[in-house]
Amino acid sequence: MAIASRAEPSRRGEGSPSRVVIEGVRPEIDAGRFPIKRTVGEEVMVSADIFAEGHDMLASVVKHRAAGSDRWSEVAMLAEGNDRWSATFRVPAIGRHEYTVEAWIDRFGTWLRDLSKKVDAGQDVASELLEGAELVRHAADRAGGPEGDWLRRRTEMLREGDQAARVAAARDPQLAAAMAHYPDRDGSRTYERVLGILVERERARYGAWYEMFPRSASTEPGKHGSFRDVEALLPYVASMGFDVLYLPPIHPIGKSFRKGPNNTLHAGPNDPGSPWGIGSEEGGHKAIHPQLGTFDDFERLIGAAGKLGIEIAMDIAFQASPDHPYVREHPEWFRHRPDGTIKYAENPPKKYQDIYPIDFESSDWRGLWNELRDVFLFWVDRGIKIFRVDNPHTKPFPFWDWVIAEVQARDPEVIFLSEAFTRPKVMRRLAKGGYTQSYSYFTWRNTKQELIEYFTELTQTESAEYMRPNLFANTPDILPEYLQYGGRAAFQVRAVLAATLGATYGIYGPPFELCVGQAVRHGSEEYRDSEKYQVSHWNRDDPASLREYIARLNAIRRENPALHHDRNLRFFPSDNDQILFYGKITPDLSNIVLVAVNLDPHHVQSGWVRLPLAELGLPTEHGESFQVHDLIGDARYLWHGESNFVLLDPAASPAQVFRVRRKIKSERDFDYYS
Amino acid sequence: MAIASRAEPSRRGEGSPSRVVIEGVRPEIDAGRFPIKRTVGEEVMVSADIFAEGHDMLASVVKHRAAGSDRWSEVAMLAEGNDRWSATFRVPAIGRHEYTVEAWIDRFGTWLRDLSKKVDAGQDVASELLEGAELVRHAADRAGGPEGDWLRRRTEMLREGDQAARVAAARDPQLAAAMAHYPDRDGSRTYERVLGILVERERARYGAWYEMFPRSASTEPGKHGSFRDVEALLPYVASMGFDVLYLPPIHPIGKSFRKGPNNTLHAGPNDPGSPWGIGSEEGGHKAIHPQLGTFDDFERLIGAAGKLGIEIAMDIAFQASPDHPYVREHPEWFRHRPDGTIKYAENPPKKYQDIYPIDFESSDWRGLWNELRDVFLFWVDRGIKIFRVDNPHTKPFPFWDWVIAEVQARDPEVIFLSEAFTRPKVMRRLAKGGYTQSYSYFTWRNTKQELIEYFTELTQTESAEYMRPNLFANTPDILPEYLQYGGRAAFQVRAVLAATLGATYGIYGPPFELCVGQAVRHGSEEYRDSEKYQVSHWNRDDPASLREYIARLNAIRRENPALHHDRNLRFFPSDNDQILFYGKITPDLSNIVLVAVNLDPHHVQSGWVRLPLAELGLPTEHGESFQVHDLIGDARYLWHGESNFVLLDPAASPAQVFRVRRKIKSERDFDYYS
Repeated sequence: MAIASRAEPSRRGEGSPSRVVIEGVRPEIDAGRFPIKRTVGEEVMVSADIFAEGHDMLASVVKHRAAGSDRWSEVAMLAEGNDRWSATFRVPAIGRHEYTVEAWIDRFGTWLRDLSKKVDAGQDVASELLEGAELVRHAADRAGGPEGDWLRRRTEMLREGDQAARVAAARDPQLAAAMAHYPDRDGSRTYERVLGILVERERARYGAWYEMFPRSASTEPGKHGSFRDVEALLPYVASMGFDVLYLPPIHPIGKSFRKGPNNTLHAGPNDPGSPWGIGSEEGGHKAIHPQLGTFDDFERLIGAAGKLGIEIAMDIAFQASPDHPYVREHPEWFRHRPDGTIKYAENPPKKYQDIYPIDFESSDWRGLWNELRDVFLFWVDRGIKIFRVDNPHTKPFPFWDWVIAEVQARDPEVIFLSEAFTRPKVMRRLAKGGYTQSYSYFTWRNTKQELIEYFTELTQTESAEYMRPNLFANTPDILPEYLQYGGRAAFQVRAVLAATLGATYGIYGPPFELCVGQAVRHGSEEYRDSEKYQVSHWNRDDPASLREYIARLNAIRRENPALHHDRNLRFFPSDNDQILFYGKITPDLSNIVLVAVNLDPHHVQSGWVRLPLAELGLPTEHGESFQVHDLIGDARYLWHGESNFVLLDPAASPAQVFRVRRKIKSERDFDYYS
Repeated sequence: MAIASRAEPSRRGEGSPSRVVIEGVRPEIDAGRFPIKRTVGEEVMVSADIFAEGHDMLASVVKHRAAGSDRWSEVAMLAEGNDRWSATFRVPAIGRHEYTVEAWIDRFGTWLRDLSKKVDAGQDVASELLEGAELVRHAADRAGGPEGDWLRRRTEMLREGDQAARVAAARDPQLAAAMAHYPDRDGSRTYERVLGILVERERARYGAWYEMFPRSASTEPGKHGSFRDVEALLPYVASMGFDVLYLPPIHPIGKSFRKGPNNTLHAGPNDPGSPWGIGSEEGGHKAIHPQLGTFDDFERLIGAAGKLGIEIAMDIAFQASPDHPYVREHPEWFRHRPDGTIKYAENPPKKYQDIYPIDFESSDWRGLWNELRDVFLFWVDRGIKIFRVDNPHTKPFPFWDWVIAEVQARDPEVIFLSEAFTRPKVMRRLAKGGYTQSYSYFTWRNTKQELIEYFTELTQTESAEYMRPNLFANTPDILPEYLQYGGRAAFQVRAVLAATLGATYGIYGPPFELCVGQAVRHGSEEYRDSEKYQVSHWNRDDPASLREYIARLNAIRRENPALHHDRNLRFFPSDNDQILFYGKITPDLSNIVLVAVNLDPHHVQSGWVRLPLAELGLPTEHGESFQVHDLIGDARYLWHGESNFVLLDPAASPAQVFRVRRKIKSERDFDYYS
């Protein structure tokens, strides 16, 4: 058998296969099948096991580039010990990027190390100096130009003269630096896979969302609200500091089997139905429900919101009411019974006769998929760049993989939020396939242990490389038990947790800020008199509203860059099981936000919380202090040492959000803190 | 953009891409780049995350076959929860095998589940029964023959008659069983990679090794031993129950810069030199050192050993003395100084002038590699099937990947043991690349915590899929400190640990069984008067010898199949830090071996050890007992409940190796145990 047939793929022309091994490259999702995700300017830390046989020194680089470019940028990797190497780079622009790793034997470094050992042992190194001169001569040829000339002169210095002077020339750090610029990569190995990075805009990572039903936006009780009414409410939303205003489906609502208030089976003539029962003779997914207004009104709303720094997010729910135009025009896009009638949705034995599920495996699946892609593109053309997708986990993954890539190929700024409350691997697969953000289990994680476990998984494991949670504290479908029984303080607790545990979070209002906690019945998470089935009227000026508390939280988020990220979350110990203590810290330690939350909405809780001072760059000397400034209550505390005391009264605020301030100047009577 | 260009690879002809996801397949080494390892008849447990969108039921199989075959065998996978599925199969024969996973929507199962829910809720299912009849009709077409006819009759039973009878026909388990035989795999997904299994003979996994220097085999003091002398010692080795007799290099030894006794720089005229200084005018790697005998003697030794159930293992050390024929015939296979002389081995500032390292990157690397392969094949042709390879971590990985595959392509029974005491990732890479077995850090793991940590890593992590440790308790290079200061009991401790923690283990004798513990100097692991540099004479009949203790251990190993495997190792708690307690258990629980070792060779130690009774199928009821039979001391104990007491006296035996015996018959006065 010829050697070539079994030798490793990386080859040196006629030379032997590369001796270098590159393994365990991280991040790498499913052997490179899916890209990791970043936003513009974010860092990517790449690490790998890199080694060769024997004791030669190695050099390695991470190579990265925009997909499609034929020019790699390189960052030198550093050895961390145990044959692990790493390097970090920033992704400069939106779009698809890629990276890989290259490594080679550092012949000059190895030679210099061995030379030094021999010199230090008093050995004659005449022969070694000649070998080094050869290495430098080759580097001179690779360099060319003035650097080449400089290196050639060094060659002479290694070859000729007194041995002590030749050794000194060899050990000159300038020579090592020059040699590192023109390494001998003969026999280098490049990792066998090129790995992808999907780089998105900042809003993919960081933002505060507010969900509201346009039909409840009228100031006149009982009247169906419109886009114009929503426009009038924009200052209200902006005053709370939200970045995204998300509207449930705005399409015409079906009449067949329309649901009445509180999800009753039969709607009265004036009942508006569920916005998720999409499609009527007035149109389907590319139409607007007439009572909401016109396309002009909608585009005007988008523009007015934009002026206040608010982006409008739309709901896309790929399902049809029996009155949807698709049912008449494309019956082949639905499933049929043996008698030829179209099947409604079921979760046996439950029946949902108002909804026809779409058959993604239809014989005309290409026509169907193209039409559904065109639904997204239709709204992108009208200025929508954020889609909250309803129940994506009931539609095939290959469809999402395809349609998200198609839409982002048209406009890479488009963001997709997956509303998949389902099994963990299904949620992760949707994220791998392209979903920008994902709803999460946050809604049901209430205890200290649950929160620590879940957020450690979300932020410290591989899933953080591709899945970004969007922490909704409530939704029209979910009024968590904690909010039903915890009163106003419970809403504050969940708002603080959502806004500080997550770079992206959301609330469904006004029920949230008005602390609406009544479920349709005991044991249910459905709101009583849910807006899903009726028009509601809200007193947004209720003095008990959390409007200002939320505004404060969103202001704190804006002012503290540490809160714009998820992977920098760290939990710290507290000695009280009702007090959760955590921090978010920028890599340069310039912004340290610490959060202490009393998870018990009914009682005052106090306890000692502990910080790793040295890691945070805080004073560790006995007697030295640092200031923590509670950005909610505006109180300032001097903390000393590792352990400090907190007391959290739910009647005031069940949480404190501290910004750590370092001493910048100390006078006899006063200390100043940055 | 056309859908096809972005759709997933697995396609259904004109149908939409498969909805099924297969991820996280285990075992899978480096995305399938390397095979896992098994021996003939061993099990492979394959697991994977398998799911689709929505709530349809799935079915999946592990497919496996001999590499090169075009026919897969299939084993149905079972759902373990959390979308994880698994199945187990046995590898039937030596050679390369492969496996992958296929999964599909179980349309019949989904239909039957939903039908049952509707029937149980009292709903009319006339339409559903017609749908089911269609599914059965298609299965009948797939089946053909008598099963097809049977299924076609069932189709009629679903279509016609009283609804209750039709439902009963649908729910008939016989129908479900028949449908499972002819599943509708339309839209199935096959995992994107086919993964490899290197299947070797049993000795690759299980065996007791004995290392000895042939030159010390003479009964006459001072005389250089020969293969004939080794032959005369075979009954001695066999009496201890060893399976493999491993000999250090048997080639002619170089004379230039030959080392004297205790590694002194200058050998006297009668000093034999190190067997690892290979090559003289009498030949190189394909020659035999004349004082050991002839090729006929060697083949006779192999034959005589075989008759006693002992296999001879050879040492292959790819390096040359300055007198090796390669130096004259192929100077291009070595590295040269600028003055043209050949470089000797160095570890600066240390110099090894008696050794020329081979240059695996030689310009004639193809010629060199072929020659080194031919060295292995030369000895394979003379009957050697086990090679212990010296310092493989100083030669390039691609060479080993290639040469092991080349040799095993000629003879798949050949076993390679890697003597690489180096960094963990380097050792693992050698194993991935084909080494059958590997030396380990066992020699330096002495405390309870060290042993638990290291053996958990070796047996319970991914490395157990491809790296098999060979636990040498000592070697000619390593007299561990524990043996230098622990006395006879220390040798017993290490023998028991090696023989029961590892399915494969070894000792270097006679120093081991004679409890030789004198190092060349304090702080060194080198033997005083090491056989590496001189001929030794041993009193193998010393009454203090551990010969019989070792014979007992090897007999216990043979009689207890649980000890023939590594991955079945489990550590159990003991309340004394000097007592290590662990077990090896066959999957059917028919052979349970428990080992309690007193790691303190100087003092009696006692304590309580704890067993998970239910998992081991042992009586958990209060008052019920089971017998544990110490196979070393032959004492039998009745144990009750989870916690039992052990007392280990190093003066007798520092360890007990229990076989658990269940009660098979109970009479008034006596209990009998199997």
